[in-house]
Amino acid sequence: MGLIVQKYGGTSVGSFDRIRSVAQRVKALHDAGNQIAVVVSAMGGVTDKLIAMAREVSSDPPEREMDVLLSTGEQQSIALVTMALLELGVPTVSLTGRQAGLRTSGSHTRARIDTIDASLTRKYLDAGQVVIVAGFQGVNEEGLIQTLGRGGSDLSAIAVAASVDADVCQILTDVDGVYTADPRVVPDARKLPEISYDELLELASVGTKVMQSRSVEFAKKFGVKFEVRSSLNNNPGTIVTEEHGSMESVVIRGVSIERSQARVTIIGIPDEPGMSARILSALAEAEINIDMIISNIAHDGFARHSFTMHTNDLGRAQAALKPVLNTLGSAAQLESEAGIGKLSVVGIGMRSHSGVAAQMFTALGAAGINIGMISTSEIKISVTVDETRIEDAARVVHAAFDLDKAPS
Amino acid sequence: MGLIVQKYGGTSVGSFDRIRSVAQRVKALHDAGNQIAVVVSAMGGVTDKLIAMAREVSSDPPEREMDVLLSTGEQQSIALVTMALLELGVPTVSLTGRQAGLRTSGSHTRARIDTIDASLTRKYLDAGQVVIVAGFQGVNEEGLIQTLGRGGSDLSAIAVAASVDADVCQILTDVDGVYTADPRVVPDARKLPEISYDELLELASVGTKVMQSRSVEFAKKFGVKFEVRSSLNNNPGTIVTEEHGSMESVVIRGVSIERSQARVTIIGIPDEPGMSARILSALAEAEINIDMIISNIAHDGFARHSFTMHTNDLGRAQAALKPVLNTLGSAAQLESEAGIGKLSVVGIGMRSHSGVAAQMFTALGAAGINIGMISTSEIKISVTVDETRIEDAARVVHAAFDLDKAPS
Repeated sequence: MGLIVQKYGGTSVGSFDRIRSVAQRVKALHDAGNQIAVVVSAMGGVTDKLIAMAREVSSDPPEREMDVLLSTGEQQSIALVTMALLELGVPTVSLTGRQAGLRTSGSHTRARIDTIDASLTRKYLDAGQVVIVAGFQGVNEEGLIQTLGRGGSDLSAIAVAASVDADVCQILTDVDGVYTADPRVVPDARKLPEISYDELLELASVGTKVMQSRSVEFAKKFGVKFEVRSSLNNNPGTIVTEEHGSMESVVIRGVSIERSQARVTIIGIPDEPGMSARILSALAEAEINIDMIISNIAHDGFARHSFTMHTNDLGRAQAALKPVLNTLGSAAQLESEAGIGKLSVVGIGMRSHSGVAAQMFTALGAAGINIGMISTSEIKISVTVDETRIEDAARVVHAAFDLDKAPS
Repeated sequence: MGLIVQKYGGTSVGSFDRIRSVAQRVKALHDAGNQIAVVVSAMGGVTDKLIAMAREVSSDPPEREMDVLLSTGEQQSIALVTMALLELGVPTVSLTGRQAGLRTSGSHTRARIDTIDASLTRKYLDAGQVVIVAGFQGVNEEGLIQTLGRGGSDLSAIAVAASVDADVCQILTDVDGVYTADPRVVPDARKLPEISYDELLELASVGTKVMQSRSVEFAKKFGVKFEVRSSLNNNPGTIVTEEHGSMESVVIRGVSIERSQARVTIIGIPDEPGMSARILSALAEAEINIDMIISNIAHDGFARHSFTMHTNDLGRAQAALKPVLNTLGSAAQLESEAGIGKLSVVGIGMRSHSGVAAQMFTALGAAGINIGMISTSEIKISVTVDETRIEDAARVVHAAFDLDKAPS
């Protein structure tokens, strides 16, 4: 028995059958004597439909009114899920974001949660009622409805869990948990029983789309331990938590890949102050997200800078850099290459274990896979390889670190 | 220039084209220098769709959650209408029922408006903004969303008009105003420039479906003068107001008919106390709305009671009365008749003019139309006639009182 917060996403409440199935799951927990608050998203597809409605009457839908419109999606969900639970005889009430005390600030359509006044939620929980809370929404100081942007319902769930001091916060989704690698690429990938916030953040930043990074950061900030698990079965998922001592014995937690990367290299840059800033500013102004950045001085005395980005941005990057190139002197040239993949290994144990990079590069070399660029952070090593070899690379590195086996 | 409150119903905002057309109308008023608050209903069909969704997950949808669900319909409308106005460059904000300060009490799905705190509405109006308010909804003392039941958006509009002391309150609908008779039945029916609350209430009670009676009663209670007019053209409609001296010079304001009426008569009732109560209680328990009630003592010493009701209720009424009949003694018998129409004339001038009934009955008699039951109130006379003659009856009475001509 305990206090459980669950979050169900749009797919999990995407049909009346699914809503009934969510109600059954919640009833089982309630029957077992738990207190339960459930955060729900809009039914799958509803938000897109509302956005399409807005576009019917507005060429550029104003954000304040988008929030008024979009928040109705979650409000409908809470009513329907509550009705389904009442139909099963479970005492249940719904709460909008406002009623659940979610106070927001910042811009409409991408607000942040400032505080949460859980008094009404607590009151209902203490009275033995299941509480169904609208995700993705809150109200600001003026009383205006604000939505939280992508992944907002996860944020809501973690905020609710923090505010009621939940024993468990479960994010129910269409994946089983966090794996050592994408099981579609690495067949013997293993579901992780637990992972640290930082590791999940690094994995998320390199393409493992389990949750939006800001929800993980929010959980880390407020110390909310949560579990990512499937809404379709009752298997245990992956606990995401603060790192603790025994985690460090595992050198590598997981392997992640990104495809469709491109590299741009500028060579022949005069070795003078301000050159890098000029180049990076041009890319920033063009709103191009660059990922790995490598710069060094070649033997000819000129500097060279390399960046990676998504292939879709390559053309715009070249256009943005062209005028800069002309200001860098006659030796400056731009080279580019598409068809690149990026492979990363992540693990907090890396900090206290040496030789991780050597072990990774050896494995790739033995498989005949050439390494392009290399970048490292405290708990991550990323390399680029030819995109045609990216899946092989993931498999050999996964095997090299014995990720298919549970650590002893 | 003034402060105008308008209300648009579900049909008037029933499509994106209609929403754009509402925005154009509001813009014209705004451009002319008026302050404007607009109360809107859910888009036509949306409320029915939400009710159908509730029935998918609940055999008996709980009312608290129905209010959470149904109120999203109006919330979507205010966002869309606001967006359409902003698209035209008109500064506009939306307000939910809660934000517009509509405080309710009573039962969910049929709450009443207790108070309205118009401070936010006033603030925006004073800042030169058009304010779009969600009709049909408010919040109770606990902060729970409540809806107002049928005709709730009219109620909201009248409450908003009262709270901001509007110069004009316009109820925009799919009829042009209030007519002396249904123009489909009486071709020379005339649109009334004005009518008193009481006259409209009496006409509404006999089938002229312009507004729900409780909205008219609410307007009367708070002294809100309003205009019923078309959302499809710019013709002046009908002003509904408190009665004033010059109104009394008009004897009859209008004629109204009801079809599909049935009569039940019980004869042979012993002339003893409690007999009527027994009969009426049986009908009340069966939730049968009875309309005209006539009782008298026949020459044989027995009493007889007659009632009218809608034909659809006749079978249930007979079933409900059967067990009562057995307790009334052996002389009691039940007779019934369907195919009856009811004709009413309404006018506050009736109070100070005698001979109205005589004039009406003479006209009907001259046309060879037999009168069945007769009932009267202070400002209304109703008679039943054979349903096949109800339209003729309306026309001859309309002509007898010169209702096609504007009073001098």
